[in-house]
Amino acid sequence: MHLSRYFLTPLKETPAEAQVISHQLSLRAGLVRQTSAGIYAWLPLGLRVLKKVERIVREEQDRAGCQEVLMPTVQPAELWRESGRYDDYGKEMLRFSDRHAHEMLYGPTNEEMITDIFRQYVRSYRDLPKNLYQIQWKFRDEVRPRFGVMRGREFLMKDNYSFDIDFDGAKRSYDNMHMTYLRTFARMGLKAIAVRADPGAIGGSLSQEFQILAETGESKIFYDAELDSMDINDIEGTRGLYASAEEKHDPATCGVPPDRLREARGIEVGHIFYFGTKYSEAMNATVTGPKGEAITVEMGSYGIGVSRLVGAIIEASHDEKGIVWPEPVAPFHVGLVNLRVGDGACDTAANEIYEKLQAAGVEVLYDDREERAGVKFATMELIGLPWQLVIGPRGLAAGVVELKNRASGESEEISVESALARLVG
Amino acid sequence: MHLSRYFLTPLKETPAEAQVISHQLSLRAGLVRQTSAGIYAWLPLGLRVLKKVERIVREEQDRAGCQEVLMPTVQPAELWRESGRYDDYGKEMLRFSDRHAHEMLYGPTNEEMITDIFRQYVRSYRDLPKNLYQIQWKFRDEVRPRFGVMRGREFLMKDNYSFDIDFDGAKRSYDNMHMTYLRTFARMGLKAIAVRADPGAIGGSLSQEFQILAETGESKIFYDAELDSMDINDIEGTRGLYASAEEKHDPATCGVPPDRLREARGIEVGHIFYFGTKYSEAMNATVTGPKGEAITVEMGSYGIGVSRLVGAIIEASHDEKGIVWPEPVAPFHVGLVNLRVGDGACDTAANEIYEKLQAAGVEVLYDDREERAGVKFATMELIGLPWQLVIGPRGLAAGVVELKNRASGESEEISVESALARLVG
Repeated sequence: MHLSRYFLTPLKETPAEAQVISHQLSLRAGLVRQTSAGIYAWLPLGLRVLKKVERIVREEQDRAGCQEVLMPTVQPAELWRESGRYDDYGKEMLRFSDRHAHEMLYGPTNEEMITDIFRQYVRSYRDLPKNLYQIQWKFRDEVRPRFGVMRGREFLMKDNYSFDIDFDGAKRSYDNMHMTYLRTFARMGLKAIAVRADPGAIGGSLSQEFQILAETGESKIFYDAELDSMDINDIEGTRGLYASAEEKHDPATCGVPPDRLREARGIEVGHIFYFGTKYSEAMNATVTGPKGEAITVEMGSYGIGVSRLVGAIIEASHDEKGIVWPEPVAPFHVGLVNLRVGDGACDTAANEIYEKLQAAGVEVLYDDREERAGVKFATMELIGLPWQLVIGPRGLAAGVVELKNRASGESEEISVESALARLVG
Repeated sequence: MHLSRYFLTPLKETPAEAQVISHQLSLRAGLVRQTSAGIYAWLPLGLRVLKKVERIVREEQDRAGCQEVLMPTVQPAELWRESGRYDDYGKEMLRFSDRHAHEMLYGPTNEEMITDIFRQYVRSYRDLPKNLYQIQWKFRDEVRPRFGVMRGREFLMKDNYSFDIDFDGAKRSYDNMHMTYLRTFARMGLKAIAVRADPGAIGGSLSQEFQILAETGESKIFYDAELDSMDINDIEGTRGLYASAEEKHDPATCGVPPDRLREARGIEVGHIFYFGTKYSEAMNATVTGPKGEAITVEMGSYGIGVSRLVGAIIEASHDEKGIVWPEPVAPFHVGLVNLRVGDGACDTAANEIYEKLQAAGVEVLYDDREERAGVKFATMELIGLPWQLVIGPRGLAAGVVELKNRASGESEEISVESALARLVG
């Protein structure tokens, strides 16, 4: 993509309404634009990140054996009356009537609707277990939306729902999602800590939040310091260590020696729930058992804040110059900087490199704007692509280009061939 | 995917509420489920089709030089007041207030919001042309939703918007989209006819609808019979021939000899508009020209009904036994039928074939259910995968399997190796 033609206008000033760094950087780097309080449009650069996050989430859901569906955003109120949650949910639920005065709502979560779909199609214990997921926009009418896409009102969420014949099956589904979530966040370059949590409006007896550590986090958490040095892939090991949200934490019973107990702030990026028959009983979701008996199915639900993750990743990975995207979610892999647009040698070299990277399937953003070097460098630092490849007249005369790694800040002057070999990998 | 574990329950009976064949088949084949009047959940099989349609639309938008954004579904009423459309739009617009009594709406289209985004970022004539697209859910509160996903209330639409410096540029953008649309529909195995149309609520002076011919179509169209024999890729040729929606048709001035004039019914799957400065003037979207003057930008907008296309494709491609998916949008490429689950030889052969097809990246749905042959054949005909590969004990003893093409109905008994070679291609 040529930056001169791209729909991207980095901002020099930090918008006054943005309090936290991820919100500031996502506005300055032109990732999103607020269209109403807590509601955002995703601009081309931001949408590329959102889609990469979404793809990782989807791949890990598929790998875990979940099947993708897509439910509508608009739901009938009657479903929520059936479960008893319509009156409970409060003002966070956006309610309205259609032209025929039917009461509707913009779904904040989908336990009722998925239970309704399940009971229409699944008849026998032989069809279990089932685990259905979707990645769909939801709406929660937060009283005070803030922190940009981390706490928006309209947000993209992956939610999935497990259906099992008994508690053992449901616990296996729950543990499967626990592991899937740790893998999902690790693939984005994030370390998530699973803390015991309050199930809140979803209900149920077993519930964990997945928290990314960050000073701007909304929740206080307590955890065993052993988790800091733990390999994210040692899952069983991770699961055995103490970690709790503040409201579930009791220093007296936590069992962690005081010198090993850490207190930190976290950003919730995922939440898993086991709630047994709370919805299946209210909504009569049963299957026929081996002896012909009706069995009320055991359910769990699991959520990942897909759009929120874009903010959380920035909180976890930035410096004073801008965003430092982890490679798996970076909008482009390489920023190609032509320091002297209009100079024959620079243009020719940059164009050739651009074509070769494109042909090799490397995602490259080519800064071909007629701007000063300082502006171009600042843009690249701000938008945080993993690699910068800088073409200038002096280097070219000496047969070299500059290859810079955004995360480490290290740069080398090497030949074009070496740079290409490194980037194509 | 193993059908025994897939979330798919084909229905034997045709649901009473479905009047048209695409609606009947999409319910019977388990593609979608209605959750409110005109609002559908996409089940796994249907979602695979929707995503393939979406991908083709996206690829052709990218190829045409459009850049993808994603706007929220919920919009502030004030934007629509600025353009003057808030009061015009009528009851099809779903309106509501948030918890702070701000007037909001569920976007039925996005001219206002994209114009607002454009004016915030784009300053100079040098930044034009720009063409931004999104694929996002929209809501139109139809008074009488019907025909399944072809005329739903919540529907997935690709909409894009062009911004040019003058009429010539805007006309080039319009013609580019005209060609892009014909290519997009052709890639789905559809023949679309672009007819002159009424711009309706969008406004403007130039407008064409893209219609798929079908007896169940809502609109009557008139066109030059030459179009029937025209190569879809002769685009220039196609554009020169007469085609008009009924309300724009005048037999006296159409210029087509009566014996060459065809009358037919069509399903609208796309619509393109040139409306000049209708929105940019009302909303003050200007750029600075070469002499520093303010130039009001020329705009067009372009829509494809992504979820509607799933229905339209079924209307255009089915027979008395079920759906006949064109290969580019088929949910799976091959249906693998094991006629005798539990028989050692059949299971071994089917499993090996399944693994080999999977390894080769061929999308295969393996019917491993313990069902009668008749039920399995009926399922395969109903869901309409392009190829059926049937494994039975008698054939295996003779060293052959049956390979059947859904569209032509032709089948052959060939060796497993030949069948694999054919399907892997």
